Amino acid sequence: MAISAESKDGGAAIAARPSGRPRSARADEAIIDAALDLLAEGVGVDALSIESVASRAGVGKATIYRRWPGKYELLMDCVRSMKMAQPEPRGENVRDDLISLLGVIGLNDDSRSEKVFPCLIPEVMKNPDLRVLYQQLIEPRRARIRTVLQRGVATGELRADLDIELTTLMLSGPVVMQRMLDWNPAIQRDGLAERVVDALLAGAAPR
Amino acid sequence: MAISAESKDGGAAIAARPSGRPRSARADEAIIDAALDLLAEGVGVDALSIESVASRAGVGKATIYRRWPGKYELLMDCVRSMKMAQPEPRGENVRDDLISLLGVIGLNDDSRSEKVFPCLIPEVMKNPDLRVLYQQLIEPRRARIRTVLQRGVATGELRADLDIELTTLMLSGPVVMQRMLDWNPAIQRDGLAERVVDALLAGAAPR
Repeated sequence: MAISAESKDGGAAIAARPSGRPRSARADEAIIDAALDLLAEGVGVDALSIESVASRAGVGKATIYRRWPGKYELLMDCVRSMKMAQPEPRGENVRDDLISLLGVIGLNDDSRSEKVFPCLIPEVMKNPDLRVLYQQLIEPRRARIRTVLQRGVATGELRADLDIELTTLMLSGPVVMQRMLDWNPAIQRDGLAERVVDALLAGAAPR
Repeated sequence: MAISAESKDGGAAIAARPSGRPRSARADEAIIDAALDLLAEGVGVDALSIESVASRAGVGKATIYRRWPGKYELLMDCVRSMKMAQPEPRGENVRDDLISLLGVIGLNDDSRSEKVFPCLIPEVMKNPDLRVLYQQLIEPRRARIRTVLQRGVATGELRADLDIELTTLMLSGPVVMQRMLDWNPAIQRDGLAERVVDALLAGAAPR
């Protein structure tokens, strides 16, 4: 979860990066990096201005507005930039695929992510446009879980009458709550995805 | 979920209430009411000051500090004031008791609650003292769910090897995510508690 001092500083990160990348992509990264820094340092979303991001990134406000219509679109790209790559389900069995998909929820190489995610919740709940953007952001993960569940129903690994949409919530909900919001300190962090998948597969009623 | 115009206004609420309540309890309510109003109107927790609450409630700052050491303790009492009464498990069967306990999660007669809860998440995640307070606040609900699960294991309604703590998360996590954070718009709100309980009891694997 550690990140290097260099990558925390937008300007230094640009200087340190190999020169093979287009200048505009590097500026985008510096801007996103600056916004993430500010949020992780405790600047609230309300207080975060395009001006403060520009100043931290060492660019003009116009450079930001050329790329993003406003603060919320920039924020969504910040979240997108921190998303871990989704593992490709191997397709051998449903249990393993679900564990690998749930395994990455809330984990991030970038230590800022655990500070940034809770900051965004109030904004996402307040602002319907932002909610649409946020749904677009989480939908790909949900879609992968859904696909694995549908395959499981088809192969008979899962019950034929499974409520696919509810099951995506029942798998990812507990992991999000626990990893991102630290809901119940009595629950061990290690192996959470596996335990959630196994508990849902087995059911709580005796067999 | 509607609340009356009177109870939204701290001052008016005091005037309208029957005179049988002690004056200090009425002042407490007006203060809590004022803080909830400000949060529900979109004032961020950072921006919320004891001064602004005092001014809205029509009391002096000293009146607030006599009752609460600081803003965070006041905020926790705000959350406490909005908690719905926990239903008393009837003890007839585990399924019904779980449905009734999950049924009240995120539901509130006070329409401000759905705005206030997401606002508090970043603060709770940032501030360890507030996390302790928050855990104290949600623990009683968890304890009730735990007690019902333990009874279910004892009666044989639930499997003998059930992980009680994980199961509390798997029951409440999806309901909190869905009701309080509107996680997946494709999932119907009605009957959610019942569907979550039944899905967890039955398990996703075929029997």
